[in-house]
Amino acid sequence: MSRTPEDAGPSGGVSRMRTGRLEGLSDGVFAFAMTLLVLDVVVPVTTRSKQDLLSAIGHNWPEFLGYVVSFATIGAIWLGHNAITGYLGRANPTLMRLNLLLLFVVALLPFPTRLMSGFLKAGNAERTAVTIYGLTLLVAAVLLYVLWRYALYARLIRPDAGDEEITLLTGRLTPGITGYVALIVAGLFFPVVALIGYLVIAVYLLLPVRLSVLRRRRRSARRSHGS
Amino acid sequence: MSRTPEDAGPSGGVSRMRTGRLEGLSDGVFAFAMTLLVLDVVVPVTTRSKQDLLSAIGHNWPEFLGYVVSFATIGAIWLGHNAITGYLGRANPTLMRLNLLLLFVVALLPFPTRLMSGFLKAGNAERTAVTIYGLTLLVAAVLLYVLWRYALYARLIRPDAGDEEITLLTGRLTPGITGYVALIVAGLFFPVVALIGYLVIAVYLLLPVRLSVLRRRRRSARRSHGS
Amino acid sequence: MSRTPEDAGPSGGVSRMRTGRLEGLSDGVFAFAMTLLVLDVVVPVTTRSKQDLLSAIGHNWPEFLGYVVSFATIGAIWLGHNAITGYLGRANPTLMRLNLLLLFVVALLPFPTRLMSGFLKAGNAERTAVTIYGLTLLVAAVLLYVLWRYALYARLIRPDAGDEEITLLTGRLTPGITGYVALIVAGLFFPVVALIGYLVIAVYLLLPVRLSVLRRRRRSARRSHGS
Amino acid sequence: MSRTPEDAGPSGGVSRMRTGRLEGLSDGVFAFAMTLLVLDVVVPVTTRSKQDLLSAIGHNWPEFLGYVVSFATIGAIWLGHNAITGYLGRANPTLMRLNLLLLFVVALLPFPTRLMSGFLKAGNAERTAVTIYGLTLLVAAVLLYVLWRYALYARLIRPDAGDEEITLLTGRLTPGITGYVALIVAGLFFPVVALIGYLVIAVYLLLPVRLSVLRRRRRSARRSHGS
Repeated sequence: MSRTPEDAGPSGGVSRMRTGRLEGLSDGVFAFAMTLLVLDVVVPVTTRSKQDLLSAIGHNWPEFLGYVVSFATIGAIWLGHNAITGYLGRANPTLMRLNLLLLFVVALLPFPTRLMSGFLKAGNAERTAVTIYGLTLLVAAVLLYVLWRYALYARLIRPDAGDEEITLLTGRLTPGITGYVALIVAGLFFPVVALIGYLVIAVYLLLPVRLSVLRRRRRSARRSHGS
Repeated sequence: MSRTPEDAGPSGGVSRMRTGRLEGLSDGVFAFAMTLLVLDVVVPVTTRSKQDLLSAIGHNWPEFLGYVVSFATIGAIWLGHNAITGYLGRANPTLMRLNLLLLFVVALLPFPTRLMSGFLKAGNAERTAVTIYGLTLLVAAVLLYVLWRYALYARLIRPDAGDEEITLLTGRLTPGITGYVALIVAGLFFPVVALIGYLVIAVYLLLPVRLSVLRRRRRSARRSHGS
Repeated sequence: MSRTPEDAGPSGGVSRMRTGRLEGLSDGVFAFAMTLLVLDVVVPVTTRSKQDLLSAIGHNWPEFLGYVVSFATIGAIWLGHNAITGYLGRANPTLMRLNLLLLFVVALLPFPTRLMSGFLKAGNAERTAVTIYGLTLLVAAVLLYVLWRYALYARLIRPDAGDEEITLLTGRLTPGITGYVALIVAGLFFPVVALIGYLVIAVYLLLPVRLSVLRRRRRSARRSHGS
Repeated sequence: MSRTPEDAGPSGGVSRMRTGRLEGLSDGVFAFAMTLLVLDVVVPVTTRSKQDLLSAIGHNWPEFLGYVVSFATIGAIWLGHNAITGYLGRANPTLMRLNLLLLFVVALLPFPTRLMSGFLKAGNAERTAVTIYGLTLLVAAVLLYVLWRYALYARLIRPDAGDEEITLLTGRLTPGITGYVALIVAGLFFPVVALIGYLVIAVYLLLPVRLSVLRRRRRSARRSHGS
């Protein structure tokens, strides 16, 4: 949001594109998309006073499942996005546009979530709804991957980023894509299985594995060598 | 949101995780959850022109009470979150995930609020709704406490943070948890009492006691000794 | 959102409270409250295809007037808030709480706006709705003023802030309060007059007068003297 | 959001207006307006289980077209806004107000979008709805242009901004305005043509042409000359 010290530096000047507002807008869209999801978790209206409220809420399980899967997925995309911008030394116009494209899909996500929650357990339509939902997740994962590959290709990465770390982040962004493709196909036959798969992918992406281990190892190595 | 001077420092480098975007996303979710609550304060529609508007609004008191209690609670959680990130020297992957978990509950809060407002004074369902509401508050308080304990455990705290201050913040985050547990039990018998108790906890957490007193004392002490 | 260079300074340390997140949360709440207002500008549904759309939209003028007045008022409060935080050298716990109280009223504003739009031209209820709306604006203006007075009282202002500038900002925050009180009384008799008055106050507060003139004068003076 | 190092500098002091919160509030409003649009992409309710869901969604194409055009337009305005604030050395009170005026139109955009989606293919009303939509886009483009011209006029631009770059940004902000005027006229006869034209303008503004080419050329030139 604010200009970073680097941007004010002599080698940067005005022509160096700031990453601050790219991050500011992205955080805003991610935060809203996360919070908007709750609007679709509807309070049961027909059960006022008489009926058992808990079973009425339990009856709405597709909405809760949709909320959890979409929140976890947006959270996982945000973590990847955060890792990418953490490595960015600067932005360029193409990166800004790719980022807007990613935000477009993130902001759209509440719609397929609503669709999927609404048509789960509704016969044939269920298959279509879950497929549309899966395709949206796939496009988001692909765009995040493209954003990262483009940043590498256009040499926007900070010079002090280690090759090993870069390889690890690339490896971490890939499995989601192949997983989504497999689950979209599986979802044509078993929609609920696909949905649970989407949750598993999000949880896997959210687990703090490997990359952090390497980071800690490198940091301690650096400390013992000098600093 | 922007990279802090520290992150650009030589000892930090790329591998040091920034807290800026963690704060940016969190502020977005907190602000949005706070503002979304107002959507559930509904304008009475049946009273156009004829009836007394004030009594119609007064009839909607559960919605106002829900708005006040939830806003105050989110505000109190934000204050605690702000205090924690103020002590953070850096983030790590696990902390990022714990924070996403906390945001998950904060973003969900408008749902139990709506549930609770909708079923207050609705017989048996009232008990269930207030209990669900209380459990959500309890989970949020526990996650905030876990976030802080984890930051301490993983040594993410700035080295210049005083032990006394850390003990005080730990002490400040605890009473909410025991209070929520007691009120959830009480709410099974007297739901409205529990609700008022939730407001009391939020107000207590919002009152600027003790921690600030110590801070001011320490600051003036530091000034007289040197600076 | 990010830690400012000052906070990392040796004289500040951890115990010095950051203003960054206070501003981040506030900007979020202000931005959402502004944007949420548009949800209450409803598209006329009964006029599909046949009727004149323009006259149907024109029929909804109270909603547009409400949107304009509330947006302008939130904009004016944001400008005052921005001016205040611009003078803040640091925050303290009480200021954080006063700020949350102000945000509470800002986040609530869409409700009285909806109320006022819905009951305008609805006989007796109109008077009640406009009075509630005016009282909310008054409370917001008073809280903004209290925030500023408290910052002065608790010596949170940056040492390099000129006395003249401080007096001017104090003077600028006062007229809104007296104006709102007068208009609330007037609104008991002529609700629409009060509403137009609220718009006039907001526009007056939005006009870039006096304070900016002084600023420019001082800045040029400073430049000619040294720097 | 946070005070930049520059603002804390000796030549700036308190009287120098920060651009951080102007950017923070703007990012919030842009992000929120982008995300709110999805609320109007409605899930078809009548087709539960039996009917073909895909054709039902396809039937809602005006809502998707509206979502895409408005998202792309807000994205394009944000890119222009980001470019402008990137050149800003400081803000002044008038610029703050012009910015609030622009945000007013951006925050309003979901309403004409909803109007346009709702009345597309609805005879005479369609013409009115598309014209109102086009006028809103035109006003937004004009305000963005005015913001930039005012910043130039009031000498708020950083001294190190190259003349060539400034001319290019001015040139880039102009075609939208003439395009919108032409399409508003065309839309009186062929509403759908105008709508597609609005999408073309947004996509054109989103394409990373020329300005970036020049930037890259200048940067490399600067590097080879010294730094």
